[in-house]
Amino acid sequence: MHHASDILLTIFIIFIAAQIGAEIAQRLKLPGVVGEIAAGCVVGPSILGWLQPAQIIPGSPLDVLAELGVVLLLFSVGLETRLDDLKKVGKSAVLVGVLGVLLPFGAGALWAHGEGFAWVKSLFVAAAFVATSAGITARVLQELGVLQRTESRVILGAAVIDDILAMLLLGVVSSLQGGGSLDVYSLLLTLGGAIGFVAVIGWGGTKVMRRQSGWLEAPISPHSALTLVLALCLGLAWLSTRFGLAAIIGAFLAGMIASETRQRDELEHKTLPLLAFLTPFFFVITGAKINLAELASGQALLMLLVVTLVAIASKLAGGFLGALSLGKRSATIVGFGMVPRGEVGVVIASLGLAAGVFSDRIYAIIVAMSLLTAMVTPPILAWLLRHAAPADASADSARESGQ
Amino acid sequence: MHHASDILLTIFIIFIAAQIGAEIAQRLKLPGVVGEIAAGCVVGPSILGWLQPAQIIPGSPLDVLAELGVVLLLFSVGLETRLDDLKKVGKSAVLVGVLGVLLPFGAGALWAHGEGFAWVKSLFVAAAFVATSAGITARVLQELGVLQRTESRVILGAAVIDDILAMLLLGVVSSLQGGGSLDVYSLLLTLGGAIGFVAVIGWGGTKVMRRQSGWLEAPISPHSALTLVLALCLGLAWLSTRFGLAAIIGAFLAGMIASETRQRDELEHKTLPLLAFLTPFFFVITGAKINLAELASGQALLMLLVVTLVAIASKLAGGFLGALSLGKRSATIVGFGMVPRGEVGVVIASLGLAAGVFSDRIYAIIVAMSLLTAMVTPPILAWLLRHAAPADASADSARESGQ
Repeated sequence: MHHASDILLTIFIIFIAAQIGAEIAQRLKLPGVVGEIAAGCVVGPSILGWLQPAQIIPGSPLDVLAELGVVLLLFSVGLETRLDDLKKVGKSAVLVGVLGVLLPFGAGALWAHGEGFAWVKSLFVAAAFVATSAGITARVLQELGVLQRTESRVILGAAVIDDILAMLLLGVVSSLQGGGSLDVYSLLLTLGGAIGFVAVIGWGGTKVMRRQSGWLEAPISPHSALTLVLALCLGLAWLSTRFGLAAIIGAFLAGMIASETRQRDELEHKTLPLLAFLTPFFFVITGAKINLAELASGQALLMLLVVTLVAIASKLAGGFLGALSLGKRSATIVGFGMVPRGEVGVVIASLGLAAGVFSDRIYAIIVAMSLLTAMVTPPILAWLLRHAAPADASADSARESGQ
Repeated sequence: MHHASDILLTIFIIFIAAQIGAEIAQRLKLPGVVGEIAAGCVVGPSILGWLQPAQIIPGSPLDVLAELGVVLLLFSVGLETRLDDLKKVGKSAVLVGVLGVLLPFGAGALWAHGEGFAWVKSLFVAAAFVATSAGITARVLQELGVLQRTESRVILGAAVIDDILAMLLLGVVSSLQGGGSLDVYSLLLTLGGAIGFVAVIGWGGTKVMRRQSGWLEAPISPHSALTLVLALCLGLAWLSTRFGLAAIIGAFLAGMIASETRQRDELEHKTLPLLAFLTPFFFVITGAKINLAELASGQALLMLLVVTLVAIASKLAGGFLGALSLGKRSATIVGFGMVPRGEVGVVIASLGLAAGVFSDRIYAIIVAMSLLTAMVTPPILAWLLRHAAPADASADSARESGQ
């Protein structure tokens, strides 16, 4: 009758750890998310071992809860974002997305080749330098209540483009690594599919919703509006994985579409308890994946330092140059906003380990770099946003976020 | 990067199936929960096969989501229940709990012995007739908005007692089956532990909360009240499994404690989106566990019919006799409210299968009986509640449930 006992204890530990971590971080004037990731590291296999490595592998119940948490987070960020706002920053977002992929990819490849990898393998390692994890930055922007700022919109738009390009790049380096020739036709097909998906869902969905948000009111159930858009969120999250994109891209688009409905405020309000319950799993489990043991040597730490600096500098440079038309201060914010690699770097590193490209140590270092960029970015971003004047007037527009 | 694709599709399917099932049921004037269970049977292994048997075993991600769903459901039911209300119906609840365990246990043992089981094995089979699943009834009562009625309070109080007795009974028959002698001392210790847990948490927790609900307002985070009581809910759900009770008992107590705080209405309101998102998993997966193939013979169907009638009649009789002081109409409502066996019968049947007591067919029949009682009860209960005058005035007291 009580098989659920162990998993309930683990869920309780994660939930409590997240609250304590967030509370401590906030008292230290740091974003709560830093505390949640740190709490994950503490309760994870590296320190206390209350979470076992087997409990946080892909497909495990905790991993699924984490995935739902980040999907709902990006959905709620989408709810606070309108297509028209993204369109206004379209050019900057595309530039940030493209440069923010090319510079880290180049820098990563150079670093890996310098470390003695053959060029083809270097490109695979470099792919782990590329993909921004929108979850971390989105949470910081949401925590600070600055999702309406121009910089935030550029970051969110660029994150979509970043994910499309990173997905393509991973396809290219995987096929090169597999010894296959580069099938340009199938790559173009993949690119076309991904762009088509985003365009059809983003533009088409928005248009449909603007005209007919009445259908959300039709059914009987009192929670119909919420359950219908949650279904939309889950459906698009899944569909975007079918186009090779991250689930959070689909969830973000679902939120953006839903933000065009009349029930927008109600939906935003009702999503908050879901975020409070589920997003801690994502951040705690992200932190739990840090393997401190593999890094317990001076040489490994030095390498980690170099890799992290390369990863930060190259992404920062790409984002900064792409957003320079907004002014240096805003460009810096955008640049740092793109820095966190989070779970995406972890997943690419896992693929590299499975493909035999990465050694255990390189794997641990890439994972640690991904998570380190996720840890150091939020405080910097929060500091910059608190001390920078808004780049445009809309930042002060009254936000009807319900608490 | 996209390992999450399959599980996201399954989650989407379950969520959509639940909404469609609930909608159809409500248009047929049936409780939504019947539609959700039926939808689970349709998408499950028996019919469409969109859910694989391996995806719904204990400990799988979907099973964990289902467990969280029913834990949150009983937490929210607890939020609408005050200890003082339960105390008023204490005698009836104890009588219903005790008779509602003894009669089905006796009837089940007689039936099993009649089917040719030795007495010791018959007692094990009989244990699967005993435990009421509070989740199904609680959902129906909540859907109809009648949690404040006397009958509802008797059912909820009796469900706690039922779970304690069922747990003890399972301990007894397991040790008899294992060939061990009956250790009365350790059984008394278990009983004392379970009653102590419920008493300390229920009485003590309520007293503490009445005096100091101010501590819920202390921390910084805007969701502090909600996250703190969610942590309480998860913690007590786990703790109650340590005392041999179902997780939902701890969750119910957590809700009951939290109902004494000043933030009660706010908490009730914020729990609704969590229920909307997570409880469908519990009911759909309950339905998916029905194995129609094992029942596809006239003989099996006849046996299922007999077992189900024995299970319903014995539980109904126990509940009816126990609650007779409320009048016949109310006693009938209480009796039917105790009928659903749901997942608890399934789990005991699994234990019996693992212990070699049950054949595959008996297992399938006990599981089907458990789920059948869960399916047939909600419409009867809803009909009785809609057509019966409230047993006391408090049923009409204004409820400030937020939608």
